[in-house]
This record gives sequence, C-alpha cells and structure tokens, in this order.
Amino acid sequence: MTSETDPRFLRSREAILNAARELLLESGPTAVTHVQVAERAGVGRATVYRHWPQAESLLIEAMATVPMPFLDKPTIPTREWLRRELTAIARQLELDDVRAVSTTLANTALWDQNMDARRAQFAGILTDRLAAALDDAHARGEITLALTSRDAAAMTIGPMYYRSTIERAPIDSALIEAAISALGTWSTD
Amino acid sequence: MTSETDPRFLRSREAILNAARELLLESGPTAVTHVQVAERAGVGRATVYRHWPQAESLLIEAMATVPMPFLDKPTIPTREWLRRELTAIARQLELDDVRAVSTTLANTALWDQNMDARRAQFAGILTDRLAAALDDAHARGEITLALTSRDAAAMTIGPMYYRSTIERAPIDSALIEAAISALGTWSTD
Repeated sequence: MTSETDPRFLRSREAILNAARELLLESGPTAVTHVQVAERAGVGRATVYRHWPQAESLLIEAMATVPMPFLDKPTIPTREWLRRELTAIARQLELDDVRAVSTTLANTALWDQNMDARRAQFAGILTDRLAAALDDAHARGEITLALTSRDAAAMTIGPMYYRSTIERAPIDSALIEAAISALGTWSTD
Repeated sequence: MTSETDPRFLRSREAILNAARELLLESGPTAVTHVQVAERAGVGRATVYRHWPQAESLLIEAMATVPMPFLDKPTIPTREWLRRELTAIARQLELDDVRAVSTTLANTALWDQNMDARRAQFAGILTDRLAAALDDAHARGEITLALTSRDAAAMTIGPMYYRSTIERAPIDSALIEAAISALGTWSTD
C-alpha cells in the first residue's frame, strides 16, 4: 500500500487542508503556517511538512477551495464597479503574502500538475467574470470595447501584477485608470 | 597561474553553469543543488562547492546567462519598433525556459536579496528603455502619451507576462496591439 492510498495518510491530508482553509478564512494568509495548521488539525508538525514541505503550496491548495471574491457580482455603472474591483486587487497584490502565493503559484505550476490546475482555475475565474461583465456593459452601451472581452483580464490585472511582482512598486490609481481606459471607449468619456 | 585562469577550472565552471541551467529549465529552482549539479556536470561535489559555496549564487548566475536584448536601440517609427520588440518579448515569454527564469526570479526575489537585486536590475532596464523611447517619440510628435512613460513597461509587458505565466495562453497580436494603443494616441491612428 503506497502512502497515497493509506487511509491515515488521506485522513491527515484532509484534516490539514481543512485546518488551513479555516485559518485562511479566519485570519488571512499569514496564519497558514506549519505550526498553526498542525495545531488546528491535531497532527504533528512533521506530518504537515511531509504533505506540504512549503507553506505556500498548502496555502494555494487551501485557497482553491475558498471563494474568490474578485470581479464577482458586477454592478452598474460597470466602470465604477471595475475601478473598485481593480483597486481591491491592487491592494491585495501589495500584500507580501498575496505576492508570495501568486508568484509561487506561477512558478511551481510550471513543474507541478496540481499547481497548474489551481493556476488554471484561478486565472479562468478572473478571465470569465471580467469578460462576462464587459460583454454586458458593451450590450448596454456603456463601453465600445477596443479588444475582445477575454483579453480584458490580462489587459487590466496584467499591468498590476507586473508592477507588483516584477517592478515591485506601488500600483497607483493612474495605472489602474490607464488599464480601464485601455479596454475601449467608455460612454462616460 | 591563478585558479581563475586555469583551463581546467574554467572548463569545470562552464560545465557546472550548463548543468545548473539544464536542471533549472527541467525541474525548477529546487533542482539546482550541489549534489544534482555535480552529478549532471560530471564533476565532484567539492568542485561545485569550490566554485559556488552557496547554491543560490549558482542559481542566480545560471539565470543570468539568459540574455536580455529587449527594447534596446529604438528605431523610427517608434510604433513599428515597439510592435517588433513586444512581439519578440512575447515569443520569448512563450518559451518554457524564459517562463521558468522570470517566475523563479519574481518568486525567489521575495526572500533572497541577491535575487531581488537582479529582479530590480532586470525590471529597471525594461522600464528605463521604454520610457526613454516613448519620451523621444512624444517629443517628435509620434504619440500623445495617455500615461506617464514610466508606466509603459507595466502597461505593455504586464499583459503579456500575465497571459504567459498566469493564463498560460498564447500572446496573440491583438493583445500586443491593444497594449500599444493603451499608451496613447499615435499620430498614425
């Protein structure tokens, strides 16, 4: 019997993930440490390390089961909703933990299939939500899109992600406004 | 004869760097260990330690062998030069090794000062070059900038970087054109 099918192995894995998820929801990403997860899950610290040598990987896996609030439930006017949502993402991207999780995800996904699935799920949600909101805004005459709506996530989140993780500089409102303008001609222009 | 000019020293240095780069591209930064590099390079572990006492330094140097010719030497018309350069960056970002190096850099820079210095250098070059080219283009009347020229790198490379490392989808010419248009009003529009 390999460890992957050992019921005790699977039970401890499940307990650890549940503990990580609880800690994430209660206290944010900084709470998802080996020590706190082990304590909450009622397992030894070594067991947590055996399942997830890196706390970031555990955090990413726990995050995958937690709802992602960004770009959800668009409101009208779309431009104001978008400014609000992008600003919220910008503030998140400036947190060390979120930077750690997002760059760990992008990096480890290149070699780890499970991580790549998380990455795809995460990216897909953002792309889908923004595309749907912009298609509706376009249909309502709020914006004449300058690009296909499925390019909108890359066009708006991309500059902020690059600014935060590659340039490591603050995401100011000018960059956010430039990204919003890049989507097309807004009726309020 | 100092060791730095000893042909055997230089040969083993080259073999170690090549091995480190291969391991980085194949299996990610965690694979660049003294043990694995020595085995791959066909040299003793002590030899790797003599050249690079710290595995992190070896990783940084292996990564540095990826050349960075982008956005250098702008030509006129600026828009065509920019389209050419961004397309070249896009093709690079679609290569597994460039994705590996760029996401490893963004990730490890969060915890490693040397890596962070390399990240800052890398990002600074791109930001500076593009800002200078666009300021000149603006002065010549080729473009009326819609943003500060130092936001241009994030606004153009950001969407491509996000598309390549987070969405993991092809960077088509439509995305590149959208990024170029986002910079301002081109006189050729």
